[in-house]
Amino acid sequence: MEEFKRVKVEKLFELMKKLFVAAGLPEADAEVSTEALIAADLRGIDSHGASRLPYYIGKLKNGTVNPKPNIKIVHELPSTALLDGDDGLGPVVSKLAMELAIKKAKATGAGLVSVRRSNHFGIAGYYSMMALKEGMMGLVMTNAVSMVTPTFSAKGVLGTNPISFAVPTGRLRPFVLDMATSAVPLGKIEIALKNNKKIPVGWLYDDKGEFTDDPSIIVKGGNLAPLGGTRELGGHKGYGLAMMVDILSAILSNANYGAKQEGLMSMRKEPSNVGHFFMAVRVDGFRPVAEFGQTMDEALTAIKDSPKAKGQDRIYIHGEPEFEFEDERKKLGIPLHPQVVMNLTNLAKAAGIKAEEYL
Amino acid sequence: MEEFKRVKVEKLFELMKKLFVAAGLPEADAEVSTEALIAADLRGIDSHGASRLPYYIGKLKNGTVNPKPNIKIVHELPSTALLDGDDGLGPVVSKLAMELAIKKAKATGAGLVSVRRSNHFGIAGYYSMMALKEGMMGLVMTNAVSMVTPTFSAKGVLGTNPISFAVPTGRLRPFVLDMATSAVPLGKIEIALKNNKKIPVGWLYDDKGEFTDDPSIIVKGGNLAPLGGTRELGGHKGYGLAMMVDILSAILSNANYGAKQEGLMSMRKEPSNVGHFFMAVRVDGFRPVAEFGQTMDEALTAIKDSPKAKGQDRIYIHGEPEFEFEDERKKLGIPLHPQVVMNLTNLAKAAGIKAEEYL
Repeated sequence: MEEFKRVKVEKLFELMKKLFVAAGLPEADAEVSTEALIAADLRGIDSHGASRLPYYIGKLKNGTVNPKPNIKIVHELPSTALLDGDDGLGPVVSKLAMELAIKKAKATGAGLVSVRRSNHFGIAGYYSMMALKEGMMGLVMTNAVSMVTPTFSAKGVLGTNPISFAVPTGRLRPFVLDMATSAVPLGKIEIALKNNKKIPVGWLYDDKGEFTDDPSIIVKGGNLAPLGGTRELGGHKGYGLAMMVDILSAILSNANYGAKQEGLMSMRKEPSNVGHFFMAVRVDGFRPVAEFGQTMDEALTAIKDSPKAKGQDRIYIHGEPEFEFEDERKKLGIPLHPQVVMNLTNLAKAAGIKAEEYL
Repeated sequence: MEEFKRVKVEKLFELMKKLFVAAGLPEADAEVSTEALIAADLRGIDSHGASRLPYYIGKLKNGTVNPKPNIKIVHELPSTALLDGDDGLGPVVSKLAMELAIKKAKATGAGLVSVRRSNHFGIAGYYSMMALKEGMMGLVMTNAVSMVTPTFSAKGVLGTNPISFAVPTGRLRPFVLDMATSAVPLGKIEIALKNNKKIPVGWLYDDKGEFTDDPSIIVKGGNLAPLGGTRELGGHKGYGLAMMVDILSAILSNANYGAKQEGLMSMRKEPSNVGHFFMAVRVDGFRPVAEFGQTMDEALTAIKDSPKAKGQDRIYIHGEPEFEFEDERKKLGIPLHPQVVMNLTNLAKAAGIKAEEYL
């Protein structure tokens, strides 16, 4: 068992922000980007937090991400907008985009913003949850590196294209769905590969489009299965959801859709042109917020109180495990994998920052 | 093999409309309802067409559906509305609701309508596709009879809660996703049961919340699995999508959410109070419609042209199989199962209509 290092949230925040500034981001944008990444670490989604910093910094350094983008509204109606991110860092572009969706929702009841020329934005849930404090629901999607296989295809021409849907409640914690539309995220294959274990049939296709239980196939032309896995178990539905995300994020915005997103193993020297979709909806466009919150509490409680499956003692609401991670990590610090510590240390060294003051 | 009877679309339409009128619907509403049901038959979704007529007529006759509803906007903003269906028939309420969403989208770019006190509305795709001829995308959801099990639960406290997303294209046929958020629809279990066949693990839970390959468990306290099936294959995501549908359709509208929808075996003598959600979004709120259509065509063609899995010679776009059914059935007529013919004949007899003039 490798030893994880617990690091105080404030310390990690400070280090990451300094690294972003050293890579050319203005102070305010470095702060936004750090906050988005640390939100993932806090919520236990370790694959999308500090561990991604080398990727983000690398893109800033090789010039495929623009550190000082001129983000523009290309076209808009009272409830809609197309935003051009000018190849800015994902969180910088995306926070602005979600704020615009919220502003439009304030005016009309709903705001929908499709974004082009952006980059990897971290976890979708960070942005969908921005709606909560406004008494709104947030729906956020993004397209991504192509590695998910349509039903009956043998190639990963779609991304893991996540969907996040955040909904305010009354006294309970918010409902926060945040899911890839693939059966599993890439990380699960990587972990099995590292531990030399077989994987369940339904996660991974080989380069003939047949299921495999061998995780090493992912680096031999293999591709992820859509949610549902086999056709028999509804894989065409996961494929359809991935298409919906691609349409709203990348086709509606004229970003790089489908296989135009770079593949898993590629390292393009041109901007990613990722597409996102942000929607904010006022709850009081339908019902008073307090009344709605009370019904949400009742509905979630009814689910939690329903009879448990054999061997189970708890039914989870979406977002619950993540909020519990957040409570723990705010108190005890964020556990960093030794590899992440090493990567951060190296980035710091290259930037003339003393990592040991933070980690 | 039982013999299906091919019936001309116009003849079936006329008979069904007459049966609706005989059950108390005004002429115009009978026409709308028939059109919505026949859309399912045309598209090959036989479980949601003429075969459902006895259920609809039964509800009109036992007074749980109001044949002359006073449908009202309870509250609205420029882009949103809450609609009260006054216990009207699903298609009657829903066509009005989608028209309202489209009207709001014309004004602001997007229209979102949540509906309470409605009933089973047929296929979601009928309403999402209403957006297409306006150069809009349509997103439609509904909650339903509770029979889908949340992850780690042993009870079907959620509906099959379908999502339909329709998107205009250029010269290709529209993209029309229309999917239950359960792994499979109830019909697949019923067919296996009828044919005395085992079912794949991942479709059906028994009353302990354990998977079973025995379809007869559906009538012994069994419940459907959410899309993804097992937790390992992502069943918590299907559960999350079912929740999203329930929130937008029934909690936002204050309809009967979750297990408040009657169970599979119940025959309540009170209105169903089903909730729906309708959204229309103007494509030109983002990009010119023609330009978007061209990108859609390119994207769908790229998917179809991607390498095929071993043993497959075609990759389907969502909606394609249904459009092909429609072409065939418009030409050759709609094939009706002998049981459906008998049910229609009996309904006609009770209404003093000569079924043999139509079937």
